[in-house]
Amino acid sequence: MVNEDKHNPVSLQNIRLNDGFWSRRAEIIAREVIPYQWDALNDNIPGAEPSHAIENFQIAAGEVTGKFHGMVFQDSDVAKWIEAASYSLTTYPNTKIEAQIDWVVELMGRAQQPDGYLNTYFTVAKPDERWTDFSFGHELYCAGHLIEAAVAYYNSTGKKKFLRIMCRYADYIDGAIGAQDGKMQVYCGHEEIEMALMRLFQATGEERYLRLSHYFVDERGKQPCFLKNEPTFGHTFKTKWFDLAYHQAHAPVRAQTMAEGHSVRAMYLYCAMADLAKETNDESLSAALEKLWDNTTQRRMYITGGLGSQGHGERFTIDYDLPNDRAYAETCATIGLIFWAQRMLLLSPDHHYGDVMERALYNGALSGISMDGKKYFYVNPLEVIPEVVESRYDHEHIQVKRQEWFGCACCPPNIARLIASLGQYIYSQTSSTIYTHLYISSEGKFQMNGQPVVIQQQTDYPWKGEVTFSLKIVDCQHITIALRIPGWCQKQQIRVNGHILADVRIDKGYAMITRQWMDGDQISLTLDMPIEFIYAHPKVREVAGKVAIERGPLVYCLEEVDNGCNLGGITLSSEGKLEAEFCEDLWGGVVVIKGEARRSDDDEWGTKLYSSTKFPSKAMTMQAVPYYLWGNRQPGGEMTVWIRNA
Amino acid sequence: MVNEDKHNPVSLQNIRLNDGFWSRRAEIIAREVIPYQWDALNDNIPGAEPSHAIENFQIAAGEVTGKFHGMVFQDSDVAKWIEAASYSLTTYPNTKIEAQIDWVVELMGRAQQPDGYLNTYFTVAKPDERWTDFSFGHELYCAGHLIEAAVAYYNSTGKKKFLRIMCRYADYIDGAIGAQDGKMQVYCGHEEIEMALMRLFQATGEERYLRLSHYFVDERGKQPCFLKNEPTFGHTFKTKWFDLAYHQAHAPVRAQTMAEGHSVRAMYLYCAMADLAKETNDESLSAALEKLWDNTTQRRMYITGGLGSQGHGERFTIDYDLPNDRAYAETCATIGLIFWAQRMLLLSPDHHYGDVMERALYNGALSGISMDGKKYFYVNPLEVIPEVVESRYDHEHIQVKRQEWFGCACCPPNIARLIASLGQYIYSQTSSTIYTHLYISSEGKFQMNGQPVVIQQQTDYPWKGEVTFSLKIVDCQHITIALRIPGWCQKQQIRVNGHILADVRIDKGYAMITRQWMDGDQISLTLDMPIEFIYAHPKVREVAGKVAIERGPLVYCLEEVDNGCNLGGITLSSEGKLEAEFCEDLWGGVVVIKGEARRSDDDEWGTKLYSSTKFPSKAMTMQAVPYYLWGNRQPGGEMTVWIRNA
Repeated sequence: MVNEDKHNPVSLQNIRLNDGFWSRRAEIIAREVIPYQWDALNDNIPGAEPSHAIENFQIAAGEVTGKFHGMVFQDSDVAKWIEAASYSLTTYPNTKIEAQIDWVVELMGRAQQPDGYLNTYFTVAKPDERWTDFSFGHELYCAGHLIEAAVAYYNSTGKKKFLRIMCRYADYIDGAIGAQDGKMQVYCGHEEIEMALMRLFQATGEERYLRLSHYFVDERGKQPCFLKNEPTFGHTFKTKWFDLAYHQAHAPVRAQTMAEGHSVRAMYLYCAMADLAKETNDESLSAALEKLWDNTTQRRMYITGGLGSQGHGERFTIDYDLPNDRAYAETCATIGLIFWAQRMLLLSPDHHYGDVMERALYNGALSGISMDGKKYFYVNPLEVIPEVVESRYDHEHIQVKRQEWFGCACCPPNIARLIASLGQYIYSQTSSTIYTHLYISSEGKFQMNGQPVVIQQQTDYPWKGEVTFSLKIVDCQHITIALRIPGWCQKQQIRVNGHILADVRIDKGYAMITRQWMDGDQISLTLDMPIEFIYAHPKVREVAGKVAIERGPLVYCLEEVDNGCNLGGITLSSEGKLEAEFCEDLWGGVVVIKGEARRSDDDEWGTKLYSSTKFPSKAMTMQAVPYYLWGNRQPGGEMTVWIRNA
Repeated sequence: MVNEDKHNPVSLQNIRLNDGFWSRRAEIIAREVIPYQWDALNDNIPGAEPSHAIENFQIAAGEVTGKFHGMVFQDSDVAKWIEAASYSLTTYPNTKIEAQIDWVVELMGRAQQPDGYLNTYFTVAKPDERWTDFSFGHELYCAGHLIEAAVAYYNSTGKKKFLRIMCRYADYIDGAIGAQDGKMQVYCGHEEIEMALMRLFQATGEERYLRLSHYFVDERGKQPCFLKNEPTFGHTFKTKWFDLAYHQAHAPVRAQTMAEGHSVRAMYLYCAMADLAKETNDESLSAALEKLWDNTTQRRMYITGGLGSQGHGERFTIDYDLPNDRAYAETCATIGLIFWAQRMLLLSPDHHYGDVMERALYNGALSGISMDGKKYFYVNPLEVIPEVVESRYDHEHIQVKRQEWFGCACCPPNIARLIASLGQYIYSQTSSTIYTHLYISSEGKFQMNGQPVVIQQQTDYPWKGEVTFSLKIVDCQHITIALRIPGWCQKQQIRVNGHILADVRIDKGYAMITRQWMDGDQISLTLDMPIEFIYAHPKVREVAGKVAIERGPLVYCLEEVDNGCNLGGITLSSEGKLEAEFCEDLWGGVVVIKGEARRSDDDEWGTKLYSSTKFPSKAMTMQAVPYYLWGNRQPGGEMTVWIRNA
């Protein structure tokens, strides 16, 4: 259903990764994470707290007796698992996992109520309370994740059973909720259904799913707001941080100009808005999105792509309020930012969107999963001092070590589905242009002017800035290959078949190479990847006087295991020389950054707490590692991204 | 009852302030604060939340019907008011206030139960629950404040009625609690009674009060601890921050080495320990106190003398954890530190104790009351950004403006009693030495070798470092006049009758001037008072790379009203010239500090959140004012003590 006039993503089925950096991660997801998560959902992990997620469906189907257990949104864990597994199957076929999905889809079919309703919490635990708690009941949220899973499984396998179940549920919802008389005028306290219905529309072509998504987005934030009348509104805390803005319901979405409230909720809303803006050419939505994008990425985003400065409410606070040690920066929010950035690229290809997508992917999202794929950070602070985390109430939400699984298990399956579907973020296309957003070794298949085009991308990214593209073409093709020139890159070179392109046109940060391409043509892109000192806007008070280190798309950090403790006592000079060094010993090879620095000499200082004598310092060699890597070698040590600068 | 072999404080009755800095404050306390607080206790402030504190006594006496209202420790508000008023009466006699005290003392007599018990909360609201909630019931704490008030009123007026009421209550407590069989082995969750009983012992000479205080101190922290068995233990929060350490009950007091738990509670305990150590020559207590002192003042004290780094539990956290913006630094805790420092001086005259007493007095305590004496800070942060305070959950305990009165009204009467009794902190004496700890214009009367000695101290402190002492002596006296040379002073000069003392003996920071003094002798002390840049220990991560400005005993701060907003964007060079300027326009004269600084040029920077270009800066003239003054001119603006240093 590719619309030739539009800018479209490339289906995951048409991309095959063979990347030094990402393929091993995708393989860990396929071979370890997805089977492990299946066991977790089935309460088969010895010693781990049981999930009860599958059992809840069995109870709802009347096949097992017992009580509902888990969070009200426990169903979504199963949904996200199916979605991740479905993506993974496209690259790593696995009949056992496919059979497990088929089994659980059958179970869901039996758990679906006669009227099409499908939610184990309300069916089992609160049968009389359907549609009474939009603030925190997560009914439509769970429906959304199930729909996304159904679409993913259908795209991956062509099997329609799950899609039919979810269409039936969506039709039921469409009959119950909407603008028309006799329906409820409501929307979900946690956005998700909006984005999911867009996928269902794309998969089925049924316009009523598009209309329902549109309704949810348009209805949100109308005042007075029905959420305020619910007894659950304000959560159990009833503090001002669980207000309408927490749900992005403080104003109609087109009047919203700042990223407010729960950060995952906000990202999912913005994704749906972008889907709708693109599908319906709604310029009022696009205009709102541009403002929200600028506010999010220019005032409320950590350098890692992390979002949400406060644990209480897992939410945005105010412009430039970005404390490193008390960041929430939930893995799921950064994943949501990646989703949103991809959609913004489809609305308007501009390297700013691609830059943020890359930043979020290689830093704040990837930090959420350990190198072995088995442990997860829910929260991704930019500074950790373990003894402070243990001893301060305002650090209660911080974990100094990645966890195996969570009572609220949103992040592990979310990062699994991101990595398993990473192929679809690399390219997008119009009828005449193939846009390259990410540099990942892969083979991509495109249809251009009715003929197949294959691009083989080869790179050692993110360690090296060289990328080559080899084209396989039937006859020839007059098309544009657009390459994102990252904002971090000050100097780049492009060769076609060995010849330097002297004056390539750059459009919004994309090098646009238009020519008559022949089979076997090769593009070489070289991105200068020096070590950079990065400064934050002067209003970001938490990092005033500090620098971060970046190289290419990677944000670096200092860890105690390399630099000793009291990382706050380390100072980097702007003139100090830093060197990048490929360190093979670290997980098959990681570029670390070494350089001269100074650190406070605590012994020389003595016991005085305050003194008119400036503190003595001594030379040291500091070593920085990519932020995503932190906490893998010696979990429980200090870490900091921002370093004092003198 | 002056013990000639011991180092004793000087009775408030023998000191008369006539100081440019302090007398106006003492006068505001006498003329405005004490009458205002009386009206507040009697619910006569239009528009203010009623206190009910006096009414509770009327109900307990059976003279008014109604319910108890207020905190469980509401009685202590009345006690602290009487104590403050009593001190104030010694300088500012006031028959109306004296009559009000007499009236309320009579009322207390009628509210006292037949067995001697006196507590309105348990008498009125929980008559069957006496002595069941030592964790948070505050029964002994209230008793302690009433005892302190009774002793103060007796010392001030010689009237014994209140003292007798409290002796009766203390005797009742002594009969109910103690080591002996048949008594309860308990102590109060909030220390206070221990210190109060020492005062009662000093006022009455009754050794049983000394023994009971000793019992409470010795019993505290024995394991297993009875507090843990109380249902109220852990407060309503039940978090780990309301543990045994919160009550300083985690270990026997002599085994405690670090300042732990609720900071006011800790200070009151240490005061009692010091009183006992002095009275009983208990060296094991002295040794513990020295360790606790070092830990408190060298690892856990804000530069303002503020204590308590966390709002949740109003407590100490860990060494060097001193966030400026989320400080608790309760006014009462700093006042407690002044109490403790004075007692440490009596144990062992060392300028470190006097320096901390001075630091706490002129900074973290004085900031608690507005220049007009009518508004109070409960919490004294070292950095305030109002929009952050309003928008972050971890700043909930911070107020950006001083408040008129509090539901929990501990700080206003506490600062009132401190200022009203300030005279007693200036001097102390042994049989042969008069120690001068604070430089405040005043007349002090001493008995040395059976003869009166009068010292007239004259100074423009804290603005100027010159102090003169004129002695009035009958015949002559061979004694030592000891003058504290503050730790902040690098250069001082002492003249006697105009002649420079070349090699005066300095003993633990005190200049010991021993000679045959004659009537009319004059000592001139000149303390060099340059502007100093102060650095913190490198482990205080929150101020790494920052400086504070001090001049003499005063810590300075930047305020938005002088320097514009975004104070975090201001940088002081260590080489930058600063000048002190006496500014008459500010409350009759304040020394402000002006100098060249640089500030980030936000306009030049543009909208980028992160950039590899270092931020541009521009020259500015900064102005710093004494910290105690902040929030008086334009309440609700930014403030910071620590400034970036380049």
